[in-house]
Amino acid sequence: MEAQRELGAPIPQDAVSAYRSVIDEIDLSSIKRRELRTRHDVAARLEEFCSLAGCEFVHWGLTSRDLTENVEQAQIRDSLKLLFLKAVAALRLMAQRAQDFATITYVGRTHNVPAQATSAGRLFSVFGEELLWAVECLGKLIDDYPLRGLKGPVGVQRELLSLFDGDESRVEALEDSIAEFLGFSRRMSAVGQVYPRSLDFAVAAAVFGLLSGPASFATTLRLMSGTGLAGEGFAEGQVGSSAMPHKMNARSSERICALVEVLRGHVVMAAGLAGRQWYEGDVSCSSTRRVLFPDLFLASDGALETLLVVVDEMQFFEQAALEEMNRQLATIASSALLSASVSSGAARSAAHAAVQTHSLAAAAAARNGESYDLIQKLAADDALPLEAEAIRGVIEQAASGSQADSQILGFVRSVEYLVDKNPEACEIKVGAIP
Amino acid sequence: MEAQRELGAPIPQDAVSAYRSVIDEIDLSSIKRRELRTRHDVAARLEEFCSLAGCEFVHWGLTSRDLTENVEQAQIRDSLKLLFLKAVAALRLMAQRAQDFATITYVGRTHNVPAQATSAGRLFSVFGEELLWAVECLGKLIDDYPLRGLKGPVGVQRELLSLFDGDESRVEALEDSIAEFLGFSRRMSAVGQVYPRSLDFAVAAAVFGLLSGPASFATTLRLMSGTGLAGEGFAEGQVGSSAMPHKMNARSSERICALVEVLRGHVVMAAGLAGRQWYEGDVSCSSTRRVLFPDLFLASDGALETLLVVVDEMQFFEQAALEEMNRQLATIASSALLSASVSSGAARSAAHAAVQTHSLAAAAAARNGESYDLIQKLAADDALPLEAEAIRGVIEQAASGSQADSQILGFVRSVEYLVDKNPEACEIKVGAIP
Amino acid sequence: MEAQRELGAPIPQDAVSAYRSVIDEIDLSSIKRRELRTRHDVAARLEEFCSLAGCEFVHWGLTSRDLTENVEQAQIRDSLKLLFLKAVAALRLMAQRAQDFATITYVGRTHNVPAQATSAGRLFSVFGEELLWAVECLGKLIDDYPLRGLKGPVGVQRELLSLFDGDESRVEALEDSIAEFLGFSRRMSAVGQVYPRSLDFAVAAAVFGLLSGPASFATTLRLMSGTGLAGEGFAEGQVGSSAMPHKMNARSSERICALVEVLRGHVVMAAGLAGRQWYEGDVSCSSTRRVLFPDLFLASDGALETLLVVVDEMQFFEQAALEEMNRQLATIASSALLSASVSSGAARSAAHAAVQTHSLAAAAAARNGESYDLIQKLAADDALPLEAEAIRGVIEQAASGSQADSQILGFVRSVEYLVDKNPEACEIKVGAIP
Amino acid sequence: MEAQRELGAPIPQDAVSAYRSVIDEIDLSSIKRRELRTRHDVAARLEEFCSLAGCEFVHWGLTSRDLTENVEQAQIRDSLKLLFLKAVAALRLMAQRAQDFATITYVGRTHNVPAQATSAGRLFSVFGEELLWAVECLGKLIDDYPLRGLKGPVGVQRELLSLFDGDESRVEALEDSIAEFLGFSRRMSAVGQVYPRSLDFAVAAAVFGLLSGPASFATTLRLMSGTGLAGEGFAEGQVGSSAMPHKMNARSSERICALVEVLRGHVVMAAGLAGRQWYEGDVSCSSTRRVLFPDLFLASDGALETLLVVVDEMQFFEQAALEEMNRQLATIASSALLSASVSSGAARSAAHAAVQTHSLAAAAAARNGESYDLIQKLAADDALPLEAEAIRGVIEQAASGSQADSQILGFVRSVEYLVDKNPEACEIKVGAIP
Repeated sequence: MEAQRELGAPIPQDAVSAYRSVIDEIDLSSIKRRELRTRHDVAARLEEFCSLAGCEFVHWGLTSRDLTENVEQAQIRDSLKLLFLKAVAALRLMAQRAQDFATITYVGRTHNVPAQATSAGRLFSVFGEELLWAVECLGKLIDDYPLRGLKGPVGVQRELLSLFDGDESRVEALEDSIAEFLGFSRRMSAVGQVYPRSLDFAVAAAVFGLLSGPASFATTLRLMSGTGLAGEGFAEGQVGSSAMPHKMNARSSERICALVEVLRGHVVMAAGLAGRQWYEGDVSCSSTRRVLFPDLFLASDGALETLLVVVDEMQFFEQAALEEMNRQLATIASSALLSASVSSGAARSAAHAAVQTHSLAAAAAARNGESYDLIQKLAADDALPLEAEAIRGVIEQAASGSQADSQILGFVRSVEYLVDKNPEACEIKVGAIP
Repeated sequence: MEAQRELGAPIPQDAVSAYRSVIDEIDLSSIKRRELRTRHDVAARLEEFCSLAGCEFVHWGLTSRDLTENVEQAQIRDSLKLLFLKAVAALRLMAQRAQDFATITYVGRTHNVPAQATSAGRLFSVFGEELLWAVECLGKLIDDYPLRGLKGPVGVQRELLSLFDGDESRVEALEDSIAEFLGFSRRMSAVGQVYPRSLDFAVAAAVFGLLSGPASFATTLRLMSGTGLAGEGFAEGQVGSSAMPHKMNARSSERICALVEVLRGHVVMAAGLAGRQWYEGDVSCSSTRRVLFPDLFLASDGALETLLVVVDEMQFFEQAALEEMNRQLATIASSALLSASVSSGAARSAAHAAVQTHSLAAAAAARNGESYDLIQKLAADDALPLEAEAIRGVIEQAASGSQADSQILGFVRSVEYLVDKNPEACEIKVGAIP
Repeated sequence: MEAQRELGAPIPQDAVSAYRSVIDEIDLSSIKRRELRTRHDVAARLEEFCSLAGCEFVHWGLTSRDLTENVEQAQIRDSLKLLFLKAVAALRLMAQRAQDFATITYVGRTHNVPAQATSAGRLFSVFGEELLWAVECLGKLIDDYPLRGLKGPVGVQRELLSLFDGDESRVEALEDSIAEFLGFSRRMSAVGQVYPRSLDFAVAAAVFGLLSGPASFATTLRLMSGTGLAGEGFAEGQVGSSAMPHKMNARSSERICALVEVLRGHVVMAAGLAGRQWYEGDVSCSSTRRVLFPDLFLASDGALETLLVVVDEMQFFEQAALEEMNRQLATIASSALLSASVSSGAARSAAHAAVQTHSLAAAAAARNGESYDLIQKLAADDALPLEAEAIRGVIEQAASGSQADSQILGFVRSVEYLVDKNPEACEIKVGAIP
Repeated sequence: MEAQRELGAPIPQDAVSAYRSVIDEIDLSSIKRRELRTRHDVAARLEEFCSLAGCEFVHWGLTSRDLTENVEQAQIRDSLKLLFLKAVAALRLMAQRAQDFATITYVGRTHNVPAQATSAGRLFSVFGEELLWAVECLGKLIDDYPLRGLKGPVGVQRELLSLFDGDESRVEALEDSIAEFLGFSRRMSAVGQVYPRSLDFAVAAAVFGLLSGPASFATTLRLMSGTGLAGEGFAEGQVGSSAMPHKMNARSSERICALVEVLRGHVVMAAGLAGRQWYEGDVSCSSTRRVLFPDLFLASDGALETLLVVVDEMQFFEQAALEEMNRQLATIASSALLSASVSSGAARSAAHAAVQTHSLAAAAAARNGESYDLIQKLAADDALPLEAEAIRGVIEQAASGSQADSQILGFVRSVEYLVDKNPEACEIKVGAIP
């Protein structure tokens, strides 16, 4: 109303004041009663608002969706910004923990079985790098997210043009004014009654993408709780299981995964809306979006809040890691032995077969509680040109974290750069979760 | 506790009374405080309950999931039953409307373009038959849905066996007693800490299946509102659009479609849980299910409530249907003309080509506001063995509903049979929706 | 044509022979050329077929979907039957392995952390019971799956009525004849041009449900490969990793999980079709279904074939299981100690707290390579009324599989009953998979 | 091999030539036989390749995923680029048609019922603007899409470091060389065995987003075919229905919608992979991705190819549009009448109620074939301050397209800018579709 008035619409200043003065008197139950009659929520709200203000100057030249689309977009954009900051805060914490754990090595796993030594700090840099990329994508979406603007029922701004006597420049000025007020730098042009629902899908997809790295991290922490390498910590007074007092499972990590499962459902709800509009807007997506958006943002916020706690409280059990390394080292050195053999002139396939034979035999022996002198067996195999001493050296070497250090450093620097550009993220604190 | 006591567990009768007497004193905010410490919701609730009762006899021999799984299953089963009854009530209404509209014919459509004459009553029998099948499937699911029972943390009933001194028969009697109390006739046997989540998927799938017929019906009603053949009615005081006073769209049907879109998201959440259990139960699905189930049942209940209103208030505009029939009849008689030509000895493909040529020409003429004497052109075409008089007869004949009557009657009888078996459905009334 | 002829339609016997004689001459590339012109696949095929036969008696009184719907339904039903039998064959194998492993105990896990002792045979009975329920559901779907029948373009059988001079009984006889020929005992009545797509969803949901138990089993086997308790076996000449000769991951189980992920996508495609029909059939689902169904059945068949191999070749490493049991036994006896303490008069919450304190301390000590005399600590704690000797007894007792034996037996009997009713399943052999 | 050799790895030039010389001799069936033994596809291929070359210098210092991840990423990126260009080509065509149809007005619809006059050209600019935004997002994804690079089994580049004697700079140079060869400007750093699967989700989401605007366009064209306003054209020899010669439905638009339904399934498959990685890479997504990616790109390519044909051949039936405008004009002028009344001093709610009353009465009369002098009734209503003459003027005015012209122009300019930057798009031609 104020912007319309400034641009010359015949709206008295008193009217603006009249509406302003009753904002706190709006009665939701009265609106509900009106809606049962009108079967139109916006009409019911306008009726209530005008009835309180005692005049009817609001909503001139507009259709309901001129109101709701833009407000919803502002809410969505603000929600995305909050998630963005919380994700940056999580990255900041992950960078710290990556450094805390950088010097600890443990037996990395692929396909869930022991693979090679790596650094415990990399748990944060690997999944953190995934989160970094998603944060970057989310940032771009926030920047590029266009406001629908005031376009009228079918998009051709007939009512506003009429309100301003056919003066296109004032219609455009009004839209500029609203966009600025809502904090948008980009506007759509040829839209219908609603903005394209593929924007809603892009929002849901970006939010799900944001939580993907954290979900993989949480899954991995649940796995490591199972092998005794890491845990979420256990607070004073915490109960792990009502029947099994010894239980200490990664319950907050489970929650992250569970909330991300909810987000997958939201991705589908949003995908179900995109690509289905009829003509200039059928708005049949209304009830879906009323469920989708609050739930999408609550679930993702809950997942990020939980992530902050988990990253903050996570424990890595060095002694257990060391014991596993000692148990597995000779075996997981297989790739290093293969490399060394090939470098010393062995044919790759023959060397692979020989190392495999002895590794599997050693593993089988270990499973059966028997002994197997792996180094001796490897040294004695003609397919491998390495002596026992060289083999021992390769195996010892295989316990190092290799390039992990510089990779962690790279991750930390990327996070520092991001935090520098988003200092508000530093104000986000780790909260208490039930 | 009572069942345990009857089977000989050392639980004093006083204890049962003590717990009973404090049920109304349970303080949710106290539980919330306890949960912040225990980080375990069931433990927090038990602590509160025992603290009020002043003793600790509840939850003996059980793990949290012995409590929550069975209660949740009972809630799910009750929710399914309610949906079942509401769907039967909707079918009852659809059968009435099918009869109301049985004698009205209109231009049926396939691929959204005029196809052949059919009966307006069939709008209810076609989508109603789909709903009937889904109701039958849901009924079977309710009957076959098995209770997890009391199995302990990993499923082998260690604690209960211990509570009853290793007496398997008393453990089984306790499970029988609980199953009977909760109203289940079937129990799982070899389950782990949780029942298989494919049961949850089956529930979500059945609920979505239930709303599929109604969603297609609602979509079709939205389409018919657009061509002016049908509408949802328009209540006194209702507002169709805040900008366009003439608008009268099928807004409740839109809501049905929108809620079914929400259900598609729930199907995916449930599919995301099934097939993912770790070992004897990882229960990482917990937070997902806390969102999924209340929302699934609220959305589907809302859709069925809306369906009741729409079916009850739906209007069919006979005059508009008649006018369309008159406009389209000569064209949509094409399949009848093809049949008649073939019966009179024409080659099918040549007859098809000839009828197509003239039909498309007639349609093009109509679009351009020109006249085209379709009957004369058809009669003059050598590929068609029919005289003008015969053609006229075929066209008149093509306005009938053909087998629609007996199909509607079949539908009505099936619904009557179902309602007879589920008389409680008659108590479900059409409610008021905002 | 034969059925039409028998019921009196003017189709010469020669025509039937003419079509029969050219079946092997049908030229797919000619059909493709025809389709580029007709832009209608069925029309192109009929044209080709008639052109070869030299007459036009096929497809009388029918629309394309009278042909394709029924044939596709027969294909779907046959595919479901094949999956049903393969699932029964998998259950048969699972029952065998459940018995093979019944006497081996290992440390069961919930939330992925050590929980209680259970039997290795239960890996098959727990996930097998889930599969059994899904097989039962699938069997019911196959039995109840209704054929669309011959209904014409909008469902009112106008053309067939005309072909048989308005004689309803011959139309019904023709439908009966086709249903019998295709092996269906149930037919839809009031359907439009297509049968309801919620049937397609029910099919996809049943297939996904069928693979849910196997997917959880496969996931658990992948987890057990990681802790060294179980494996898929390793064939002569098999290569686990091109870089790490020692790798021996559960790669076939990974494949089962991956194919089930594909099925989740198919569930969504099918859900996207149900509830969206326009009027008497918009058939806009055509291209979706051409992708969906072949892929759904290929992926699920591949998953079941892989399951057969995995169940057949799976190894359980008893010695490793025993060692873990020895390591964890004192800890996982916590629930038994809690039960025993409560039975001996302790307050449940105090006993829980005491057992938890000592269990967590023992776990922490183990992680740090320190010693902790758990039994002594428990005996010395005043909150627990048990002496060291009694504690020792409880702990030893905790290594048993408890009710696992009778649960496995129950599973085996259920499978035997199913196999007896479906003896063809015994002919399905474990195949070779790449 | 060449890059490794240049950086000093001991690979003879002859070896490179040996492999090059046998590329065309690779025997897929031999690989298949090898894979049945190795149960490892990459190992089988390497074995075949080395066997033909007669030496073993390929794949040094690498794990399978160093090969497959990067190649798959290049394929994905190339596929995205092709889709990008085809989408630009579609936009180019849409801009042309927007201009072709710019001066035709028709009755725009919201909620599928007549709303206001708009321009037929806007059918292309509204859905085109949605496509433009998606193209922009896709372009950014292509630019930002990072290559995994050569990282070894767990990501720490152990083997490559060993191959280059611990010289980090040569490992980095090798990665640079590969990235340049594959055409990537950005590389991941701290990744594990596989790149994060949220990248795969981002790809699937972008592809689905790309087709969302086209799907809404196709849906709207299907709707307009139903009301006779527009069509896809009908080629010489085309058959619309095998039973109904008059049928002329928007079958290619149906195909677009159906393929987009397939894409929704792909979005879910991709979402099912993201957020689920175990440790440094469990690669259990392998079989899913082998289905997902070929199908995703085939389906989206098919949808875009079909879109090109539909946009190219689309017909708009001006005469039919004009007739509908004449029928609806007085009614759809309701918003203009409301605006004019409010501008002339009427209270908005009272004016809304009055216009609604008369509009609904006029619509009801039309449905019943009765007459209703809307202008006279409006002029006579005290709630409306307008005379009959003024009302007539407002109604005539309401037939214009309002701001449509400038919006179409804006769209055309945006497309021109895009085409200028992507001139290759001009080489993409409208193809023939079956």
